Amino acid sequence: MSLVVVGSVAYDGIQTPHGRVERTLGGSCTYAAVAASFFTQVGIVAVVGEDFAQEDAVWLASRGVDLEGLERVAGKTFYWSGVYSADMNERTTLCTDLNVFADFQPQLPPAYRRAPYLLLGNIQPGLQRQVRAQMEGVRLVCGDTMNYWITHTREELLETLKEWDVLLINDSEARQLAGRHNLREAARRILGLGPTVLVVKRGEYGAVLFHARGYFVAPGYPLEQVFDPTGAGDCFAGGFLGYLAECGAESGLGELRRAMIYGSVMGSFCCERFGVDRFRKLTRAEIDGRFQEFKDFTEIR
Amino acid sequence: MSLVVVGSVAYDGIQTPHGRVERTLGGSCTYAAVAASFFTQVGIVAVVGEDFAQEDAVWLASRGVDLEGLERVAGKTFYWSGVYSADMNERTTLCTDLNVFADFQPQLPPAYRRAPYLLLGNIQPGLQRQVRAQMEGVRLVCGDTMNYWITHTREELLETLKEWDVLLINDSEARQLAGRHNLREAARRILGLGPTVLVVKRGEYGAVLFHARGYFVAPGYPLEQVFDPTGAGDCFAGGFLGYLAECGAESGLGELRRAMIYGSVMGSFCCERFGVDRFRKLTRAEIDGRFQEFKDFTEIR
Repeated sequence: MSLVVVGSVAYDGIQTPHGRVERTLGGSCTYAAVAASFFTQVGIVAVVGEDFAQEDAVWLASRGVDLEGLERVAGKTFYWSGVYSADMNERTTLCTDLNVFADFQPQLPPAYRRAPYLLLGNIQPGLQRQVRAQMEGVRLVCGDTMNYWITHTREELLETLKEWDVLLINDSEARQLAGRHNLREAARRILGLGPTVLVVKRGEYGAVLFHARGYFVAPGYPLEQVFDPTGAGDCFAGGFLGYLAECGAESGLGELRRAMIYGSVMGSFCCERFGVDRFRKLTRAEIDGRFQEFKDFTEIR
Repeated sequence: MSLVVVGSVAYDGIQTPHGRVERTLGGSCTYAAVAASFFTQVGIVAVVGEDFAQEDAVWLASRGVDLEGLERVAGKTFYWSGVYSADMNERTTLCTDLNVFADFQPQLPPAYRRAPYLLLGNIQPGLQRQVRAQMEGVRLVCGDTMNYWITHTREELLETLKEWDVLLINDSEARQLAGRHNLREAARRILGLGPTVLVVKRGEYGAVLFHARGYFVAPGYPLEQVFDPTGAGDCFAGGFLGYLAECGAESGLGELRRAMIYGSVMGSFCCERFGVDRFRKLTRAEIDGRFQEFKDFTEIR
């Protein structure tokens, strides 16, 4: 076990201009773990209900994802549904049924506790902290959060952040957390809160990595077609941390740059089909091919 | 004379969260020519009124900008004023007095007609075509346009475009022109209209260059402070074409990539002060220093 991923496993109903699915495997933990599974040995910590399909468990296991930390309890699995606007830039949530996720108390199996890498999906900061505390000798902790926690549990979030190496959030969240609109100013403030690395996701425009000595900008991949952007940010996180775990390295700047690109690559593949469908037949050769494309279309000769 | 720039010379009233100026030198031709003047010998084709200040003419000349094509006629110079929102993402026009610009009939001095590079600022497509027709043996024509012309003079614009090498527009205009939301799809359609190169500007997110054999993505420069974004797109165009003119090369892909970065560099400097003020003391060493920064923060090691 190299990387532990904590977050939601859910079923999603998704409607985009390209079609709709009533119920497909989703959730932040699922997306991140599946993306990371192309790079390293992943274990997940999440909760599902009695309706969780055996075929989904089988597929995750076939990807090498360890399910010992996937708790099954009475009730229904987290269900979310939403609809995207014609240009895909707006998303309206139609329904959020937390179901068994409402009482999620993440418990790490003993086999997970000595994993060197931890990815904390966007859950209540107090729970993220409890998970962090269960780890023994973790080498790199990367966490996500969202507007809701920044607004409503700010103090708890700030305490939690102190124990993270990498904060990975989107641009509006970074601005809200720092209280600054300018991204470099916001980054400087956030790097004073604990994390030594800040990754700011900017959707189709890519992502920026900030650290004490500088920054790195990864553009978005110009997709031929954005079929369904659900989960792309979580796949970015999974690709990013999965690659670092594969390197096994301390986070040197070269590795961090490549991790940003692998994150972008996995986020871009995610958008090509509904839910996690693109990952069912994806190969490492395709991943490395797209990594090379990134090198080609960003290189200043 | 290496590069001819056609467009507006104006006075602008600008209000941003950082302050306001009542009347400062502006206009698409001014911004582009000033940015290009750091790379090559520029001549401008534009019209101003009797109120055009001698000190502005003197400064442009001191930057090496040839003013033989700057017509002075009875009346007032084009005046525009606008105010930016708190986050600088929205701009409201308060006033647009075309004045002498309303009857602009660009005439190229004989000395300009054999220039190898032509930059057609955003004016009525019919006028852009007349200018193009006055050139003798031009090597590279780059033009800009806007929503208004795409909507109201579409056929004339399509005729005009056929004689351009580079179309340089922003993303919403590219989508509107192509009738496609996806940028790669839009680019493919636009490259079928005449230009062999399409440059899509994306504001703070940088720019993308498309050509028959691929594309290149230049991220935006993460500015410490965006003081006034007025003219940044025109400075991008000036830096882009100014650098190509400096190279004197046919537009090889390596040169085009570097031109994209020099365009981004000039656009970023433009935002650091009101109007063209940042260019009053800018040095080529600063420009090349920021070019190197771009290389550093995009390089995948």
